[in-house]
Amino acid sequence: MNEKNIASHNASPSPDSVSPALTPMEEALQEAQKAGKRGEVPVGAVLLGPTGELLARSGNRIVELKDPTAHAEILVLREGASKFGSERLLECDLYVTLEPCTMCAGAISFARIRRLYFGADDPKGGGVENGVRFFDQPTCHHRPDVYGGICAQEASHLLKDFFAARRGDPRA
Amino acid sequence: MNEKNIASHNASPSPDSVSPALTPMEEALQEAQKAGKRGEVPVGAVLLGPTGELLARSGNRIVELKDPTAHAEILVLREGASKFGSERLLECDLYVTLEPCTMCAGAISFARIRRLYFGADDPKGGGVENGVRFFDQPTCHHRPDVYGGICAQEASHLLKDFFAARRGDPRA
Repeated sequence: MNEKNIASHNASPSPDSVSPALTPMEEALQEAQKAGKRGEVPVGAVLLGPTGELLARSGNRIVELKDPTAHAEILVLREGASKFGSERLLECDLYVTLEPCTMCAGAISFARIRRLYFGADDPKGGGVENGVRFFDQPTCHHRPDVYGGICAQEASHLLKDFFAARRGDPRA
Repeated sequence: MNEKNIASHNASPSPDSVSPALTPMEEALQEAQKAGKRGEVPVGAVLLGPTGELLARSGNRIVELKDPTAHAEILVLREGASKFGSERLLECDLYVTLEPCTMCAGAISFARIRRLYFGADDPKGGGVENGVRFFDQPTCHHRPDVYGGICAQEASHLLKDFFAARRGDPRA
């Protein structure tokens, strides 16, 4: 998966969807930043409906909600499905700043997400291009189109800075 | 994994935890039955705290809540964590009537569940003994003790009857 596959998805969306000045992944990065300021691992997600309308946006809220499942992806899938009026988010697209974990990959498949765009790779905890590679498995019954590496440097820097600061690293 | 590993866990719990007449897995089976009557795939789960106290019980509520993540396991983990006051359910045990899927296996690991007891195997969608076998993977950072096959026949019959009825099978 490389940047050339996703160039067209970095174009600004129409003004009536998300903020006209930002791409969906840039919106997701803003959510990641806000999550980091709340003391959460800085990961953000944005869910768009079939015509590019914003259904939900969130960062991680695991500590805030005392909920082990409150990853950014899970939160936007739940909120989006509620707004969409169905547990199946047909023709909806998910943007997330970090490669989804195994739990979130499962949820994305159940939600029938059409396209998944993600930022940084996650060799230690990812479940899409790393780890269990869930979408390639016979027990996965719906596979979204996957586009990785979008704004990956920004997403990765946010995470590195967050963990360096948590370790008390003076360079953070 | 076979029945002999889990015989002691079929004993009735103390009266001040769940119903004195039922084991935790029998309580989970009741939740599965109730889910089936609501039109949900009949899977149920019960979460016990460190001293065997009931933290949460639920069946699937995917259709009811319009939430693709509303598997019985996810619902009891979320409710239990809220009651427990932490996103980490240390020393808590989860009973579920069907082998958890990939999504739920990920959630169980994040929640730091101590022991997972499950009923029927799920070759098509399971993620513990089948499929991605998440707890055996390097990207899994907490593995519960796992005991499968508990009340497996009852759990399996509930599922078979449910799907037969949905297909309009006259034997259901």
